[in-house]
Amino acid sequence: MISFKNDYSEIGHPRILELLQKYSETQFNGYGLDVLSNQVKNRIQALLKTPVDIHFLVGGTITNKVLISHVLKPYEAVISADTGHIFVHETGAIESTGHQIILVPNESGKLSPETIDPIYQTYTDEHRVIPKMVYISNATETGTYYSKAELSVLYHYCQSKGLYLFLDGARLGVALAASKLTLEDIALYTDVFYIGGTKNGAMLGEALVVKNDILKPHIRYSIKQSGGLLAKGFIAALQFEALFQDNLFFELGNHANQMAIQLTKGLNALGIQPLYPVLTNQIFIDLKSNVVDQLLKSYAFEIWTDKGSIKTIRLVTSWFTKPEMIESLLTNLKHLL
Amino acid sequence: MISFKNDYSEIGHPRILELLQKYSETQFNGYGLDVLSNQVKNRIQALLKTPVDIHFLVGGTITNKVLISHVLKPYEAVISADTGHIFVHETGAIESTGHQIILVPNESGKLSPETIDPIYQTYTDEHRVIPKMVYISNATETGTYYSKAELSVLYHYCQSKGLYLFLDGARLGVALAASKLTLEDIALYTDVFYIGGTKNGAMLGEALVVKNDILKPHIRYSIKQSGGLLAKGFIAALQFEALFQDNLFFELGNHANQMAIQLTKGLNALGIQPLYPVLTNQIFIDLKSNVVDQLLKSYAFEIWTDKGSIKTIRLVTSWFTKPEMIESLLTNLKHLL
Amino acid sequence: MISFKNDYSEIGHPRILELLQKYSETQFNGYGLDVLSNQVKNRIQALLKTPVDIHFLVGGTITNKVLISHVLKPYEAVISADTGHIFVHETGAIESTGHQIILVPNESGKLSPETIDPIYQTYTDEHRVIPKMVYISNATETGTYYSKAELSVLYHYCQSKGLYLFLDGARLGVALAASKLTLEDIALYTDVFYIGGTKNGAMLGEALVVKNDILKPHIRYSIKQSGGLLAKGFIAALQFEALFQDNLFFELGNHANQMAIQLTKGLNALGIQPLYPVLTNQIFIDLKSNVVDQLLKSYAFEIWTDKGSIKTIRLVTSWFTKPEMIESLLTNLKHLL
Amino acid sequence: MISFKNDYSEIGHPRILELLQKYSETQFNGYGLDVLSNQVKNRIQALLKTPVDIHFLVGGTITNKVLISHVLKPYEAVISADTGHIFVHETGAIESTGHQIILVPNESGKLSPETIDPIYQTYTDEHRVIPKMVYISNATETGTYYSKAELSVLYHYCQSKGLYLFLDGARLGVALAASKLTLEDIALYTDVFYIGGTKNGAMLGEALVVKNDILKPHIRYSIKQSGGLLAKGFIAALQFEALFQDNLFFELGNHANQMAIQLTKGLNALGIQPLYPVLTNQIFIDLKSNVVDQLLKSYAFEIWTDKGSIKTIRLVTSWFTKPEMIESLLTNLKHLL
Repeated sequence: MISFKNDYSEIGHPRILELLQKYSETQFNGYGLDVLSNQVKNRIQALLKTPVDIHFLVGGTITNKVLISHVLKPYEAVISADTGHIFVHETGAIESTGHQIILVPNESGKLSPETIDPIYQTYTDEHRVIPKMVYISNATETGTYYSKAELSVLYHYCQSKGLYLFLDGARLGVALAASKLTLEDIALYTDVFYIGGTKNGAMLGEALVVKNDILKPHIRYSIKQSGGLLAKGFIAALQFEALFQDNLFFELGNHANQMAIQLTKGLNALGIQPLYPVLTNQIFIDLKSNVVDQLLKSYAFEIWTDKGSIKTIRLVTSWFTKPEMIESLLTNLKHLL
Repeated sequence: MISFKNDYSEIGHPRILELLQKYSETQFNGYGLDVLSNQVKNRIQALLKTPVDIHFLVGGTITNKVLISHVLKPYEAVISADTGHIFVHETGAIESTGHQIILVPNESGKLSPETIDPIYQTYTDEHRVIPKMVYISNATETGTYYSKAELSVLYHYCQSKGLYLFLDGARLGVALAASKLTLEDIALYTDVFYIGGTKNGAMLGEALVVKNDILKPHIRYSIKQSGGLLAKGFIAALQFEALFQDNLFFELGNHANQMAIQLTKGLNALGIQPLYPVLTNQIFIDLKSNVVDQLLKSYAFEIWTDKGSIKTIRLVTSWFTKPEMIESLLTNLKHLL
Repeated sequence: MISFKNDYSEIGHPRILELLQKYSETQFNGYGLDVLSNQVKNRIQALLKTPVDIHFLVGGTITNKVLISHVLKPYEAVISADTGHIFVHETGAIESTGHQIILVPNESGKLSPETIDPIYQTYTDEHRVIPKMVYISNATETGTYYSKAELSVLYHYCQSKGLYLFLDGARLGVALAASKLTLEDIALYTDVFYIGGTKNGAMLGEALVVKNDILKPHIRYSIKQSGGLLAKGFIAALQFEALFQDNLFFELGNHANQMAIQLTKGLNALGIQPLYPVLTNQIFIDLKSNVVDQLLKSYAFEIWTDKGSIKTIRLVTSWFTKPEMIESLLTNLKHLL
Repeated sequence: MISFKNDYSEIGHPRILELLQKYSETQFNGYGLDVLSNQVKNRIQALLKTPVDIHFLVGGTITNKVLISHVLKPYEAVISADTGHIFVHETGAIESTGHQIILVPNESGKLSPETIDPIYQTYTDEHRVIPKMVYISNATETGTYYSKAELSVLYHYCQSKGLYLFLDGARLGVALAASKLTLEDIALYTDVFYIGGTKNGAMLGEALVVKNDILKPHIRYSIKQSGGLLAKGFIAALQFEALFQDNLFFELGNHANQMAIQLTKGLNALGIQPLYPVLTNQIFIDLKSNVVDQLLKSYAFEIWTDKGSIKTIRLVTSWFTKPEMIESLLTNLKHLL
């Protein structure tokens, strides 16, 4: 069984296992106040021109939940695309902290001042919440990414309205690789963002990077209160120690994208056109249901929508995907068609 | 520098690193719905006579938060000893989910019907919350543990009042080793409890064990909403796969206790009597402040209270503590006295 | 200055002031546990065949907030029309209790199985909340009302899906008068609803009527916790004592509707067609902006939308509206046109 | 039946009924944005030297809940005496907004720097909440009041620690009358307080007075979100319009105290000594249970504690208490003894 189900199906990159072994006899301070955590923070800071605060958390949902509830006052709300992870796949985590999510129709998974502003304008008095943050994902939930120009325009809009811009980087690795943006670009055009480890080779972990000074104080209190302050914080830090040595983080993102390109070419050769442009590591295609059923015997993937005789499936490549896995899938698919 | 600061200062037990290596090329399903998670659940279930639901979470605070907020209605409250972790060291995590903690004065870190009932009786109408759960820790925050008789009496009291009994087992390993109780005993005399991995050799992870059928439905929704559903759930499960092979979990707890006994004997030989009976892996002693200052140059430990010329310090042993660490500390201390 | 701004611009109906005077020397028990509250509850119960629990609260938002948060578990959500008061005009009150509102596009302010079901079907696993309640308003926020058939179909859909149906009756008086439904019909086809006093002649107060036995226990705890348990509960009860004597509640609703019909006829005679059918006591019309500006010198009303040279305004009639107020407005408007 | 049960057993003072009549044909703006609300705010402001914001709410619990949750960040907590209303009689309302209440042992119902500081000092890092507000009641829940010196010392302590001082004035009328303090004194030595109407002659209503500029912005959002923004805000304002004409508020507080003095003298004459000094309008006495049972046939009052053959009862006087009620009680009691 070969899996194209998602980008978090394996333990983690070998270099992480090596580091675990390397430090297996070391004693660290708890709760992220250890030398390794400091070292990794410095490593990431060195990639940025702006001074930031960095905190390591275990996953995306808790990072979104902690940050958004840390920043917003009880009567303030966060704006998200209607495809946004915080609305679609987090079981009301944001609302559970008391905050409304204001949905804006997405354009290819993205937000822009043009789509936000008409809705923003309807929040005018104390009978409605105050929109105070814009949440975006990069790469988005549909596999697209923000260009530098798009991000810059959105950030300046947010600044003009007193809105914080928060970028969910659960899939930042593939977004950076595809868009040729740097971490510094991301820091420049957001107030706060996170660098996703879980979906780019780490065993777990997201690195929350806070640029805006207003948002920095007391975040550790919010992390602890949420249950997100790992006793062995060095375990999460260690992931990023591995990922940010020798450009590994960026290489893994690039690899996932290259595998998606190879897979797309192979699909094209079989006469299959992806439903959306393949920009990062997610490919959506339509297949006949009986073909899907056969494929599922040897390959794991998500069925996105089921229209009876036709099913839309999602194929995800990752740092772990090997060319021979793709060839195997394509060969098998060729026989089935 | 040798650390007696706590029992979560190292990466994790070597057998866990071996398992990580063993599974490094395996692809798993996400969110705990994988074969390894199922296998570990079966392994734990086999130690219990009662059918239970098991969920793996990353740490103690989020486990307490998820379970308590899952069970209680908005106007219901949890009873805790005033030394309870949920009150003393979780930054208002329980209150952040909307619930009052009703504090009961502890007796050696423990609760009993005698201490609970007078306070329970004052909650009589809709101007006060409804006490609906009793939270205890075992081992307790002060290093004591519940005997079978104590646990049984408390459980039956809870049942007579319609109170759920929830046992925080962050340090269950040392408690079981010290008390000669079994996991089955714990399951018998509680409605729900968790098996602490983080403080007993795991890299992270607590195994929440739900016995009472009323509490079982929809817990995965509560875990996901809290941000506690790890994408790579198999990472947490793998910890317990290692710990529950060949009795490792119980052996590690026993080792920590044996090290505490060795350390206590050595302290006694130096004329130092611990402030409380040493029952598990925590030792509290008074030392002159200048001795403490000297010790801190080579050993890490917590200063519990600072009374000026005298400081109370806490020494914690663990699965990782080696006899030579203890000898080193004792020798050093002898020179300083 | 004559106000058509809303239906809660005046102190209250004269019969309420009479009752206040009548009871001015009486001493009551606090918190709604008084003889007057019981008497009014019996009066309302007598209009219903089903046994219900009745609680008096001071306003609509707190009633919605109490009831919804009382019923839902943390991971459960309420379905509402996108025009629903709980989403549009309550400053995130529902989300502040931790619950997501699932928005469904409204049809003339209303919901039906046809519009709910496609969205309901997308909530399938623990990565999304569980829809557990449907919230409707009657009369709706746009002045329409539910027919008996519509309500019956919706209720049976809810029952088939395990969804509670909650009817916000802030404007129930005009809805009943217009639809010829009875309170018994409302009780029959909902799990819980409230009878709005504030917008139908009371100084304050909504009577929450709980039919479904599952929802009844412990509501007083939820009311108290929310801050909604009035110390002088008899003040709220007294409003309904007045409204439910001699059919006053129904007469006032009918009067408001009759005034709306008279106003609509007059507008028609001036060549003005309301934007939507006038079904209850709200009339939306377009006027040139300069006419609106002139009118505002003598009349109060809401400007609903401002399209530059044209403004949509809302005119609301009520129990207090007198025919001469309408004649005054029409005469003035005639001169301005 | 004559009631000494509490100070909120009657509709309200006659002058309030007069005002309701006076304004019965007036149309007001909704949600407290009306001319009457403004007029009353000016009337109260005129009694204070400091510029304040004033908001009218319906009751004490919702006022406490709104203000505390408005001010505190999620990881901040409020300090209260263990007798404090927010802990003892509000069904977890504060915790329901996510905040811990830090309990401090009361001294005659009061707090002081001496009792607060030792507990305050234990909150030192992100594993505990941050104490950020001190909540006191005046008059206290046990009938005592703060002297000017006590209040001043407490306020300056709070200022030195960055703690906001919030005074619950549900019974401010009797406290001012007894302590000879003025509203200006209260404003001077607190950051925010409220003037209780419900227990001093109003039908309902508390006037929240915010002095500290940091706390002022966006309170109306918090009030609306809590469900505390009354549609007919002018009803609440009108209560204070009556109370703050001709010193009525202060006279009613004084009257209640005078009635308590008269009752105490009468009890003394019967050989009964109140358990605590009678400082405001609450009297606690011990009576034989059979005497209590007899008294309850003609008088209403609270049984505070039941020690079998002896019961402690609470007698409350109010603006409504008449000398002949007291004489009736004393006469009856004399016969029973």
